Amino acid sequence: MPLPWGLCLVNRMCRSWAGPARKTTPPLLGCCARRLTLSTQKRTSDLNSFVVRTNTCGELRSSHLGQEVTLCGWIQYRRQSLFLVLRDFHGLIQVVIPQDESAASVKKLLCEAPLESVVQVTGTVISRPPGQENPKMPTGEIEIEVKTAELLNSCKKLPFEIKDFMKKTEALRMKYRYLDLRGSQMQYNLRLRSQMVMKMREYLCNLHGFVDIETPTLFKKTPGELLQALEFERRNGNSSFLKEFTFYWGSTTWTQISPHKGAKEFVVPSREPGKFYSLPQSPQQFKQLLMVAGFDRYFQIARCYRDEGSKPERQPEFTQVDIEMSFIDQTGIQKLIEGLLQYSWPKDKNPLTIPFPSMTYTEALDIYGTDKPDTRFGMKIVDVSDIFRNTAIEFLQDVLKEPQGTIKTICIPGGAKYLQSKDFEAIKKFAVSNFNQEVSPLFLKTSESRKSPLTKLLKEEEKSALVSLMKAQEEDVLLLTAGEYKKVCSLLGKLRLECADLLEARGVVLRDPAVFHFLWVVEFPLFLPKEEDPTELESAHHPFTAPHPSDIHLLYTEPEKVRSQHYDLVLNGSEIGGGSIRIHNAEQQQYVLETVLKEDVKLLSHLLQALDFGAPPHGGIALGLDRLVCLVTGAPSIRDVIAFPKSFRGHDLMSNAPDYVSSEDIEPYHIQVKRPEVTDRKDIKSVICETESSQQLVLPSRAKT
Amino acid sequence: MPLPWGLCLVNRMCRSWAGPARKTTPPLLGCCARRLTLSTQKRTSDLNSFVVRTNTCGELRSSHLGQEVTLCGWIQYRRQSLFLVLRDFHGLIQVVIPQDESAASVKKLLCEAPLESVVQVTGTVISRPPGQENPKMPTGEIEIEVKTAELLNSCKKLPFEIKDFMKKTEALRMKYRYLDLRGSQMQYNLRLRSQMVMKMREYLCNLHGFVDIETPTLFKKTPGELLQALEFERRNGNSSFLKEFTFYWGSTTWTQISPHKGAKEFVVPSREPGKFYSLPQSPQQFKQLLMVAGFDRYFQIARCYRDEGSKPERQPEFTQVDIEMSFIDQTGIQKLIEGLLQYSWPKDKNPLTIPFPSMTYTEALDIYGTDKPDTRFGMKIVDVSDIFRNTAIEFLQDVLKEPQGTIKTICIPGGAKYLQSKDFEAIKKFAVSNFNQEVSPLFLKTSESRKSPLTKLLKEEEKSALVSLMKAQEEDVLLLTAGEYKKVCSLLGKLRLECADLLEARGVVLRDPAVFHFLWVVEFPLFLPKEEDPTELESAHHPFTAPHPSDIHLLYTEPEKVRSQHYDLVLNGSEIGGGSIRIHNAEQQQYVLETVLKEDVKLLSHLLQALDFGAPPHGGIALGLDRLVCLVTGAPSIRDVIAFPKSFRGHDLMSNAPDYVSSEDIEPYHIQVKRPEVTDRKDIKSVICETESSQQLVLPSRAKT
Repeated sequence: MPLPWGLCLVNRMCRSWAGPARKTTPPLLGCCARRLTLSTQKRTSDLNSFVVRTNTCGELRSSHLGQEVTLCGWIQYRRQSLFLVLRDFHGLIQVVIPQDESAASVKKLLCEAPLESVVQVTGTVISRPPGQENPKMPTGEIEIEVKTAELLNSCKKLPFEIKDFMKKTEALRMKYRYLDLRGSQMQYNLRLRSQMVMKMREYLCNLHGFVDIETPTLFKKTPGELLQALEFERRNGNSSFLKEFTFYWGSTTWTQISPHKGAKEFVVPSREPGKFYSLPQSPQQFKQLLMVAGFDRYFQIARCYRDEGSKPERQPEFTQVDIEMSFIDQTGIQKLIEGLLQYSWPKDKNPLTIPFPSMTYTEALDIYGTDKPDTRFGMKIVDVSDIFRNTAIEFLQDVLKEPQGTIKTICIPGGAKYLQSKDFEAIKKFAVSNFNQEVSPLFLKTSESRKSPLTKLLKEEEKSALVSLMKAQEEDVLLLTAGEYKKVCSLLGKLRLECADLLEARGVVLRDPAVFHFLWVVEFPLFLPKEEDPTELESAHHPFTAPHPSDIHLLYTEPEKVRSQHYDLVLNGSEIGGGSIRIHNAEQQQYVLETVLKEDVKLLSHLLQALDFGAPPHGGIALGLDRLVCLVTGAPSIRDVIAFPKSFRGHDLMSNAPDYVSSEDIEPYHIQVKRPEVTDRKDIKSVICETESSQQLVLPSRAKT
Repeated sequence: MPLPWGLCLVNRMCRSWAGPARKTTPPLLGCCARRLTLSTQKRTSDLNSFVVRTNTCGELRSSHLGQEVTLCGWIQYRRQSLFLVLRDFHGLIQVVIPQDESAASVKKLLCEAPLESVVQVTGTVISRPPGQENPKMPTGEIEIEVKTAELLNSCKKLPFEIKDFMKKTEALRMKYRYLDLRGSQMQYNLRLRSQMVMKMREYLCNLHGFVDIETPTLFKKTPGELLQALEFERRNGNSSFLKEFTFYWGSTTWTQISPHKGAKEFVVPSREPGKFYSLPQSPQQFKQLLMVAGFDRYFQIARCYRDEGSKPERQPEFTQVDIEMSFIDQTGIQKLIEGLLQYSWPKDKNPLTIPFPSMTYTEALDIYGTDKPDTRFGMKIVDVSDIFRNTAIEFLQDVLKEPQGTIKTICIPGGAKYLQSKDFEAIKKFAVSNFNQEVSPLFLKTSESRKSPLTKLLKEEEKSALVSLMKAQEEDVLLLTAGEYKKVCSLLGKLRLECADLLEARGVVLRDPAVFHFLWVVEFPLFLPKEEDPTELESAHHPFTAPHPSDIHLLYTEPEKVRSQHYDLVLNGSEIGGGSIRIHNAEQQQYVLETVLKEDVKLLSHLLQALDFGAPPHGGIALGLDRLVCLVTGAPSIRDVIAFPKSFRGHDLMSNAPDYVSSEDIEPYHIQVKRPEVTDRKDIKSVICETESSQQLVLPSRAKT
């Protein structure tokens, strides 16, 4: 649901660093490598073990003066025939090309090797001559006086330079991903990811006795998996509002859900005719069964699969930090995750403060109009209904007479100064077309010429009451809308985010990219009324979610009022994790499935049976690793924290996967391609040509994604 | 190629612990849990963080006397109404059921809860009365005086008891895998696996600066992958002999190899008609490209896929420890792996001595008749040709006249005592039917009535020369065979292993199950003559393997003589890993592909291009994690070190995967099932019934696998 105005180029993912107000720039290789080394890599880590080099290029300092070193790296840069800069993953070092006759062969080698050639040099660490130090380079005080050099591999002309500031299309980056990954930013991202995951493992395995258990990825499609899919959809912004949410939940039976939606499970044909494995969207069933199995602290960095066709910011395979515990309550899981994130948080970021703040689902919807609020800035939704209890304005009167009728507003700080008339037009159009709802800007500056109809209708006391309640300044603009509660909240929640983007695009600093706001959203409803028949209920997340302990009695009387023990973890307005305490009692599970949800319990009989065989109380959570690392590194896309991502159409542009296969390849699986004209394997040559020519069309430009 | 005699029940996998001579028994839960805790779990690990319990059941000792504790666990056992034994993953503890009136409700709960119910008890740690201590139980000096108890979940009648000594069919174990996993042996296996993997990660990531990088599993079928498949086949015993090996290599082009063989890559249909992903058999291409990308120390605990149809001891998905390094040589990789295994080796096993011994491929074939020798026992193959240079025995004369003719023997210690006539008949039959080769047993005891024809033909000096050369004892039997060198070695290599099994089945201790013999096998040939045209060459492993540095000059003159930089790691006669230094020079790679192998280089153009863009020298290795953990734990099958394994037919018996899917489920993938009668989704009920009834047929009994 993109806003229609062209100014809003930045998408939700980029919110924290895009726009002119953001100060983050990709770190230079030297700096980034140093930062990473200092912070996350342990001192005991030996980067030079087993290999021929004595040191990495980036680690040498004045303290190494006089040492004879052997370095291996890529030629980054050459200044005349005097110096060359050698690069490895750890940084840059200046190498002095020897000029004397006796070293003519070394000079020739170092002067003639093309850039990005791989060389090995042995020499002495010396001081740079006074005045030639480079304070911007971590190794800038020293250089290498070369004695011997060896060309390990020569480099041909590259399709692009290995420099972060070099602009290249994403299609080109993906085709030559192995060159793209040489850039310092990608090195930083993937190394940081590895370090964070390692710290998470230390925390879970070594500090808290978790067992890392691998679960199958060749599984089968089951109701549980479908429910997970829905939950994922909801979590990832396809349905952050109740309205959309219930729309997605509008199907009646488990088996019917999937075909109604975009997300599907990949199928893997087996050698038995008609039988397929499926690639699971999460290990949900296995982790619950592991609890029944007595592995009371399970975790896995789990590869999951989801076929959503062509969607930006989705990957057909992704990774989640999957956790389940027995004998645990919601607070326990929350403490565990807070500890986990604090422990694994990169040292070059501001340390995390725990516990994270918590907010109920109801509050989140009320104040932020979404279940994943970005709490880095204010502009909260305020209920101003009371001001208009005795208003003369007719349409406001009408709204307040309705049972769910409400009047709410948000305040755009400096809105009169930074936003233009066309922005407000766009806002109004957006509200009408997406929510069928009127929204009125209220300009507070008396001299303001751009007065909305509402401004004229308002009594002075109403206006001053508004200004006082909203603590509004003269330059601010209020956005006021009246209508049904949930619609109003949702609309203002959207407008809050879009106006923040607009303000930041105009230079206002609202969200510091160095700041990370974690937030728990809790007390979701356990059930929601079905869209098509509100007298019936369906699970808000999945039918295994346990009811809130205080509400269990309501399960049997007023199930629609039961809050759940589901919790979401939100970071800077993105949901990065979610989980719940599960039902461990077979009878309660059966009651929920049969009586409340009117489901066919036979479909879940093996889970019910497992619960009957001594299932302990248990609960868990899953964190989206790609998204988390993306937010932590400030990468513009999750593709920038994945070594070999797929394009938004699900293609690997380097290898051209997926590709045509021969009929022999699929013959053992008793399947055939439905369109006969493409069944046969194309000639290899034509396939390669197709790859080359289609490169430019496959990916959108980075700015658009 | 199983031996035909019925006595040889144990398969290669079981060799180290099956048979009456083996002393390993599954550890009792208390012991195993204690051992695991003491050895591999760090002292800093807090098993009680975040949860309601204060202690695990297994950790309490006399030092806890007087402490009030809260425990959660499963009721393992109850003695009258006096005691119950509570179990968690950590061990067992005795709980005293209170007998006084005031605790009647606690007594009732603890007496009435069925076995395997989950309870929480709070009470005081007290000493057991004198004489009632149980020294076999780690917690045997103490017991719990209960104050309060809560039934967390009641347990219905289980399909089998949770006791290791309870015999149950593997089909039943798999159907109720979550119950099977409660057993102490499975808990031990999976926890040990997790701990070993964690130690490996510490070693790689923290001690040596490796970067954990996830590579895609939705990829495409490529020549490289096919070659990996072949290598895997060879490694896993389908072709341990050159003869079989070249048979598998008998196809001429990459694309033709796969359809000829059993192993295939799973295909995953995409939403583009006719285009498929494939699930890769290893990350080989990605790891080499990561070297080009400058990630000079990569590792991944990688999920790999291989569709081999129904084969015992194979899993359609498996895990390998995948490693690649830049600027490394063969010695470097070997040292790295030795350090890795030593560091991650369980503390309850005998510590590993490094470096591991090394043997050339030629030596291995010569002495053990296989490229993965089990060096835990002798019975080496000895060349006795010289003894027969002037023999009067005609068929031996004839053999020695042939260019590759040889006479070799192995000595079966105590063979005359332990083996029976029918055993020798079976040995002879095996040699004829599998190798078309005569083998003659030679009984050394003069009183031995079971004299073979050869025994009668032998001159006394020949016999005494043999006895002297073989250092044979009176009760020993020599197996002598004459023929073409490789055939003779292969046959005697097989017979050596089978005779060892026979001897062990008769009570002879040949291989101590507590002993682990690692062995490097090195200097494999780089190329082998093609079976169907020995004037042409093909890669012995894969075309990316680098030639041995001393043999590079031969590449251009006598390529058939070039040794490779490939290395295999063998443990107790099983290959658990293999790797090589790769070719990093595009020209050399092109020469090998085009001139030596006569391949179409276009198929590998992207790899050649990457080598041209500054590829560093690099090499790597992959360890088969499932196999390694299986050998370390002494499990009878790799299924016992995998949480949710598939049956040998590739089925998940718990969920009944793979299963029929609806036509809607596959419709977006433009495929259809070839046999129309099974295209439609079966009625759920009938599918469930089918699962139930087919359980008993799907898996072979454990003894057979």
